[in-house]
Amino acid sequence: MEVSKLNVYNTLSKRKEVFEPLNPPHVGLYVCGPTVYGDAHLGHARPAITFDILFRYLQHLGYKVRYVRNITDVGHLENDADEGEDKIAKKARLEQVEPMEVVQFFTDRYHRNMDALNVLKPSIEPRASGHIIEQQEMIREILEHGYAYESDGSIYFDVAKYNEDYPYGKLSGRVVDELLATTRELAGQQEKKNSFDFALWKKASPEHIMRWPSEWSDGFPGWHLECSAMSTKYLGKEFDIHGGGLDLLFPHHESEIAQSTAAHGHESVKYWMHNNMITINGQKMGKSLGNFITLDEFFQGNHSLLDRAYSAMTIRFFILQAHYRSTLDFSNEALQASEKGLERLMQAMSQLDKVKPSDVSDFSPAEYEALFYAAMNDDLNTPVLIAHLFDLSKRINSLADGREHLTQTDLDALKQLVHRFLEEILGLKTEEKKVDTTADLDGIMQLLLQVRHEAKLHKDWATADKIRNQLQALGFQIKDTKDGAEWIKS
Amino acid sequence: MEVSKLNVYNTLSKRKEVFEPLNPPHVGLYVCGPTVYGDAHLGHARPAITFDILFRYLQHLGYKVRYVRNITDVGHLENDADEGEDKIAKKARLEQVEPMEVVQFFTDRYHRNMDALNVLKPSIEPRASGHIIEQQEMIREILEHGYAYESDGSIYFDVAKYNEDYPYGKLSGRVVDELLATTRELAGQQEKKNSFDFALWKKASPEHIMRWPSEWSDGFPGWHLECSAMSTKYLGKEFDIHGGGLDLLFPHHESEIAQSTAAHGHESVKYWMHNNMITINGQKMGKSLGNFITLDEFFQGNHSLLDRAYSAMTIRFFILQAHYRSTLDFSNEALQASEKGLERLMQAMSQLDKVKPSDVSDFSPAEYEALFYAAMNDDLNTPVLIAHLFDLSKRINSLADGREHLTQTDLDALKQLVHRFLEEILGLKTEEKKVDTTADLDGIMQLLLQVRHEAKLHKDWATADKIRNQLQALGFQIKDTKDGAEWIKS
Repeated sequence: MEVSKLNVYNTLSKRKEVFEPLNPPHVGLYVCGPTVYGDAHLGHARPAITFDILFRYLQHLGYKVRYVRNITDVGHLENDADEGEDKIAKKARLEQVEPMEVVQFFTDRYHRNMDALNVLKPSIEPRASGHIIEQQEMIREILEHGYAYESDGSIYFDVAKYNEDYPYGKLSGRVVDELLATTRELAGQQEKKNSFDFALWKKASPEHIMRWPSEWSDGFPGWHLECSAMSTKYLGKEFDIHGGGLDLLFPHHESEIAQSTAAHGHESVKYWMHNNMITINGQKMGKSLGNFITLDEFFQGNHSLLDRAYSAMTIRFFILQAHYRSTLDFSNEALQASEKGLERLMQAMSQLDKVKPSDVSDFSPAEYEALFYAAMNDDLNTPVLIAHLFDLSKRINSLADGREHLTQTDLDALKQLVHRFLEEILGLKTEEKKVDTTADLDGIMQLLLQVRHEAKLHKDWATADKIRNQLQALGFQIKDTKDGAEWIKS
Repeated sequence: MEVSKLNVYNTLSKRKEVFEPLNPPHVGLYVCGPTVYGDAHLGHARPAITFDILFRYLQHLGYKVRYVRNITDVGHLENDADEGEDKIAKKARLEQVEPMEVVQFFTDRYHRNMDALNVLKPSIEPRASGHIIEQQEMIREILEHGYAYESDGSIYFDVAKYNEDYPYGKLSGRVVDELLATTRELAGQQEKKNSFDFALWKKASPEHIMRWPSEWSDGFPGWHLECSAMSTKYLGKEFDIHGGGLDLLFPHHESEIAQSTAAHGHESVKYWMHNNMITINGQKMGKSLGNFITLDEFFQGNHSLLDRAYSAMTIRFFILQAHYRSTLDFSNEALQASEKGLERLMQAMSQLDKVKPSDVSDFSPAEYEALFYAAMNDDLNTPVLIAHLFDLSKRINSLADGREHLTQTDLDALKQLVHRFLEEILGLKTEEKKVDTTADLDGIMQLLLQVRHEAKLHKDWATADKIRNQLQALGFQIKDTKDGAEWIKS
């Protein structure tokens, strides 16, 4: 591995490769976003944070990144299948509202959660329902090239036909013959030639309200199609990186490859990157297991599996302490350890401002810089980077205590280095909530006013005046009342 | 006017009418949102806040409101005309980015500004580019009904033909014959039968990148069409209220009426509501006058016309202090007066918590309640409501000083009333920023630690220990160092 260059694990080649963009300095990055029919949970936080790190790091390296992360607001049926109800339409039916109200509500909440996690906004956030025309155009291309067929108003992708010309299953390793042998006939699938064919366009049943006209039927696009159509529109027929959770590898991403290849005659994506899954106390997350914990529940400590609330930065740090390709197990113990670790780290880093420069340096910030880049260049190895940051934090404590020394130049370089990796690249920040609340300020102010009151009782006018004057200098006005004193910020 | 019911001024009838929804308890509300090619300024804040008040008040009255506010991301040409460049495409060309990146960037910033102004999110926020199919369908209906014609791949609305069957100009009072007499021939308008015909679909020139296929040409929809198509989709062919700035009355809203009537055979909107304009130091806002001040510039005090920064709540209060149908003139003096007024109001209201109940009441909160509702029911008369709140604030000061009295029941009712009108309906809130900063907390803490340090120097152990212990009780740990003391929140 060339440590001086970014290496990423390509799920397609199943090895780490040096990242070389197709059209430097431009980088096209597409990541599968949420299906907005419910609140975001840990399983949404992980890809968002993983590819946020990639987005931040690529930009840090000087690339001009166009980051597209979609919102799925139509076509994603229950059980990720071709039959069953649309997830959003179902939610809308249950709540008796227009589907787009469901979409807006959960999109807004998703954004609020992502902001709390300090996940940067993507360059473009396209919605599936806003790109029906583009999806229909792609269906026409696939039909023209012979890799799809119409069946009762719906259009299906012909996997067997495609497999004659192109290797189907190259991403997931699935083999069509085996798929054929193991899949069973499902209700409603008589429309398809083969059960593993997937829908590009579905004719809407009479009660289905999310529908658009087409030459085949009034209907809606298949779930896999939106990502192919929108990545083509905004990143072109070939682009650099496609990311998503490992749970999307099959059938979603495999279908995307087949669709793009069938439409364009060649593959679209150079690097496929997948984050691994999160387990909860060793168990897979699943609706039936009742162990889905939403991000809001984490932030508020409002779920039976949670001992207490965990802040957004704790969640972010917890996720970054594992490599994105490892599974990550949630437990209260693990989160509490992350919380303590992050606090220790941030506190050590804040000591940097107190360090006084010296004439000589006992170590060189450049050593750490090299280690930091080597970690990030090794397929975004954030746990190793964080381990190096913990090492550095010990040295910063030594600097603060005067046991080690740095020159002004090295000190400046070190501050800049910490800022760059901790804040810009890892996206960590001091959470102000714990300290910075009106209640805290008021509590301390009341104590100070009480001390002043007692000083006056003891005729210690010097102390009383000093408190009043210095508070005034800080912009606080003190007003003596019969019950004591009140304060306002002027 | 029935003061017990909400009355709104209907621009269509040019008088105040009792608000009676078509399908109670449901209310459909459509408001024209921003064209996202630049930062939001005062001219964007005013309609957003005006219709936020309406949205809040309707919900308070118990209506189930579906509030649709669109994002214009295609089709809005320079000078609001049918020729010239698309505003977003132009910005994208100048910045050499994909148009949707411009859209995403300014949409995100608009949302941030609206959140700061405490403007509630609409129920649905549809984008024009996401509803091309719906717009094409509406064009087909208008063509079928004979009120539009094709010309070199573009489709124009036939105003003269429409005017034979329906009264064109009923909202704005424009008369077709006069329009004909006063409009002059413009370059590129030879495609149109009459210069006041407007585009429903424009054929894209070869360099135009925002384009979609259609049976007429590869092109894009006209600006006026999106609102007709999206309001029909999400609110139906008839709905209750359409709002927007007075600058949109002609040609935008007049065209919407013509389009909907031509497509559906009847009008769509029961109540048209328009907020008036903002002037800057008595002058119209205009790009050429260089007096556009963005909301971010207000919040940061970063514009040559601004003496200093003004908070989002100051801007909100300033806008609410004028009736929405009056013009509102910005000046530093006016904003500073609003800031002081809001501070005075919020401070008086916060005194309520300190009032001790009495056995008798000197006045009844119900008197104020009646005045408050009468003001809001009178076409959302927020300045009158605010004047009543100022009156009430004087009485609250009297209650706090013990000059007047209320029973516990009346006190509870009064608190609830203030909360309802100040926070829920007017959407005002105490801004914490000014007080609640880490710097303030640290400044006060340093002062407190210094007082403690001096107490120790004077061997006043009681005071020193008291400070340490009470800080500990507040959750702050004090660590004595050789230079003094440090503090952390535990």
